Amino acid sequence: MLALAGAVGENRRAMTTETAAMPIDLKSAFAGARAVITGGLGFIGSALAHRLVALDADVLIIDNLFAGYGGNLFNVAPLRERVSIEIADIRDVRAMRELLADCRYLFNLAAQTSHMDSMADPETDLAINCRAQLTLLEACREVCPGARVVYASTRQIYGRPQYLPVDEAHPLHPVDVNGVNKMAGEAYHVLFHDVYGLDTTALRLTNTYGPRMRIKDARQTFIGVWLRAALENRRFELWDGAQLRDLTYVDDAAEAFLLAAASDAAKGGVFNIGGERLSLQQLAEAVIAANGGGGYETRSFPPERKRIDIGDYYADDARFRTATGWSPRIPVAEGLRRSLDYFRRHLAEYV
Amino acid sequence: MLALAGAVGENRRAMTTETAAMPIDLKSAFAGARAVITGGLGFIGSALAHRLVALDADVLIIDNLFAGYGGNLFNVAPLRERVSIEIADIRDVRAMRELLADCRYLFNLAAQTSHMDSMADPETDLAINCRAQLTLLEACREVCPGARVVYASTRQIYGRPQYLPVDEAHPLHPVDVNGVNKMAGEAYHVLFHDVYGLDTTALRLTNTYGPRMRIKDARQTFIGVWLRAALENRRFELWDGAQLRDLTYVDDAAEAFLLAAASDAAKGGVFNIGGERLSLQQLAEAVIAANGGGGYETRSFPPERKRIDIGDYYADDARFRTATGWSPRIPVAEGLRRSLDYFRRHLAEYV
Repeated sequence: MLALAGAVGENRRAMTTETAAMPIDLKSAFAGARAVITGGLGFIGSALAHRLVALDADVLIIDNLFAGYGGNLFNVAPLRERVSIEIADIRDVRAMRELLADCRYLFNLAAQTSHMDSMADPETDLAINCRAQLTLLEACREVCPGARVVYASTRQIYGRPQYLPVDEAHPLHPVDVNGVNKMAGEAYHVLFHDVYGLDTTALRLTNTYGPRMRIKDARQTFIGVWLRAALENRRFELWDGAQLRDLTYVDDAAEAFLLAAASDAAKGGVFNIGGERLSLQQLAEAVIAANGGGGYETRSFPPERKRIDIGDYYADDARFRTATGWSPRIPVAEGLRRSLDYFRRHLAEYV
Repeated sequence: MLALAGAVGENRRAMTTETAAMPIDLKSAFAGARAVITGGLGFIGSALAHRLVALDADVLIIDNLFAGYGGNLFNVAPLRERVSIEIADIRDVRAMRELLADCRYLFNLAAQTSHMDSMADPETDLAINCRAQLTLLEACREVCPGARVVYASTRQIYGRPQYLPVDEAHPLHPVDVNGVNKMAGEAYHVLFHDVYGLDTTALRLTNTYGPRMRIKDARQTFIGVWLRAALENRRFELWDGAQLRDLTYVDDAAEAFLLAAASDAAKGGVFNIGGERLSLQQLAEAVIAANGGGGYETRSFPPERKRIDIGDYYADDARFRTATGWSPRIPVAEGLRRSLDYFRRHLAEYV
């Protein structure tokens, strides 16, 4: 573990007595509070770090910086003087127990995110996405039982939708090892709320995109690969094209984490996070429009992907909107433009 | 690993072309076929071994015989010359790969079954009920990809019923660590069917009781403790008493495993196994009636149990009955009588 920079929070209690009717005051919730982000050098984790720093939180980032995962020190380069960074793995129970000691908010985003990798190396996926979640929650019980914990879950645990839009009551039928382990990781969070009174919330994220996402390969999502191809003037591949997805811009996702953490109504809950719905073909065209040029070719699904693909998906996220007042603000066209602008300026840091 | 006895099967293909309309011929399915039972020295596993021997299967029992778990060599004492027994742990991947080499039927019952133990030592529960299931299935893919696999799942993964009777579409909301890990273990079985074509079936068992169950303590179910108390002329404790449960006699449960393994219609499926429904007070009175005497005292739920208890539960098992023609045959009064007769004769082996 390596402390790159430090800041000490005064850890005063957040005033989180809001109801859905009353807008949540994030500033008073987070200012001065120790907020820990596992996977904080990654795509969504670093977006959260940026927001938390702006809210004057005392931010500790934990990340293992493993190659192939989403962590990238450049993601938090502008924050270097204002956050603490520990290069540690959530599987290291002793380290976690130490690092969580004065945690008020735990944003638990560290994960193995590749579906294909989870099939090729299921045990690593299990160790990170299942077992380490359990040991992390045990550490919370021990050293920070009063912390608010927000877990990054995923729509993947629903599997192929049986109806649309998918609400939280939809049966869980994961279609890959990653999905099984994320389902278990989420269930531990719910369980530790129900049984031990830990204030956990799980957000089932859909396709999140934006600046700082992994664009080197498809380990996070295919969108990264598309953005990179567009920037490098290469045609990208559209598989099928008719499938519907809802996309969440990363700042909207980060806002969801903050609202979940600061909201009493979200305690113990599991919530879908949705976004703007479009077909993959519409998305491909939106990428090209936002890029001011480029092209793609349509092909059918590769067989090894087809068998773990889930078809159309879009979320009913009314439960979360009602509980916290959240709503996504950045339309896809704007989000893609911001993403491409970012990567155009910093491409060398991401490829 | 210790081979206590051996028998060689000729491994001819079972004729499993039955439909639900046609009764399944267990003899032609199992005679001469290598059937492996993990947890085969345990309560349900040993009942299965007895049935499989009667069907002339080539039975290999795998059990770790850990203290506190259900394994007991006495359970298969009458079969000693007709089964192979390996003292091995399902977490030992290398051993499993070797032992499953010529497996035609895998009855996968090895588990940590105590809900309280899963809370006190969650990592061991995870290692056995979650991680070892994944590595076992990986071993199957490798060494016996054509095997029929039947997994002992549990109603516990439903949590507190949201409606009754509980069918397989009921949301999963496990209330203890054991439930989370069993849910993941089941999901791996379904996944390996869907993705790799492994012929798996999961049976969600309810309260199973009968001869050879663990009566030393409540690690399997409270019913064992009641039976022992009745036999030892002690009063047992009834908590609450109004709660409804359905009980399955162990031979009916074993029959369900056999039918699942021999049925094409059960491939890839998840099925509830139900039984006779009664309140815990009715069950307490049935125990005393079957025992020809005894008593119990009613008290309220201990707080550490209450928080992981699930209230009323009874299953809708129509899906399994339709798929396989299964129906339970032994009424609770008769099953309790048989159980008490067995333990009266062999009490010293179980306490």
